[in-house]
Amino acid sequence: MSTADLDRSVDDDATLEADVFARACLSRPVLQTITGRWGGLVLAALGESPYRFSALRRRVDGVSERMLSQTLQQLERDGFVHREVQETIPPKVEYSLTPRGEQVAERLLGLIDFVESQMPDILADQDRYDSR
Amino acid sequence: MSTADLDRSVDDDATLEADVFARACLSRPVLQTITGRWGGLVLAALGESPYRFSALRRRVDGVSERMLSQTLQQLERDGFVHREVQETIPPKVEYSLTPRGEQVAERLLGLIDFVESQMPDILADQDRYDSR
Repeated sequence: MSTADLDRSVDDDATLEADVFARACLSRPVLQTITGRWGGLVLAALGESPYRFSALRRRVDGVSERMLSQTLQQLERDGFVHREVQETIPPKVEYSLTPRGEQVAERLLGLIDFVESQMPDILADQDRYDSR
Repeated sequence: MSTADLDRSVDDDATLEADVFARACLSRPVLQTITGRWGGLVLAALGESPYRFSALRRRVDGVSERMLSQTLQQLERDGFVHREVQETIPPKVEYSLTPRGEQVAERLLGLIDFVESQMPDILADQDRYDSR
């Protein structure tokens, strides 16, 4: 979407296509949520299994309570994560992926697996770069 | 890698595997570079064709000269981007993907394409969430 299209709803013109390279495209903040500092890790973790908040916080090592809660809200708003309150005593809140979230998590895990497999070579390249 | 492994080179123990969920894992900053605000877009752009700096800056709409230059340096350091100075008058500097960068760009483009294709539904979900 071009800058001029920013205030237009996509319903106004079904032929408009999202273009993440355009600065005003509404797809950019969505992409930034799922690839941001925590969003990607949260999606990847939920790709393993549903989690309750505190267990998810332990899995995504280093995330603060505030950042995790903010990240989950954004992911829920974009329809990647489903939040379910179970009417137990005390109530339990469980987070899981929606079908859309599953498709994103699959692609993210592919990216993460690739980077992890490349780490020895990447560290060697970093050393080479730093010693030039 | 666990926190205790942070200062150890991967050569010290070939059985150590990168684990992006661990806060000290050296794969985290790499993943953040390629999925960060500009890294992902730069890799995706270079996945289309090599670019000179100024043309790349036009393609990645909204990036400042300083941020683009910083992003390219990080991507070069991690071995995703190749920087070539051509000995013309005046000299030209061209950026292209390394084989490793191509594999990352392919996966990123898959993610971007998926998000762009989902945008109409995502915008509808956002409206629904905001009006609850």
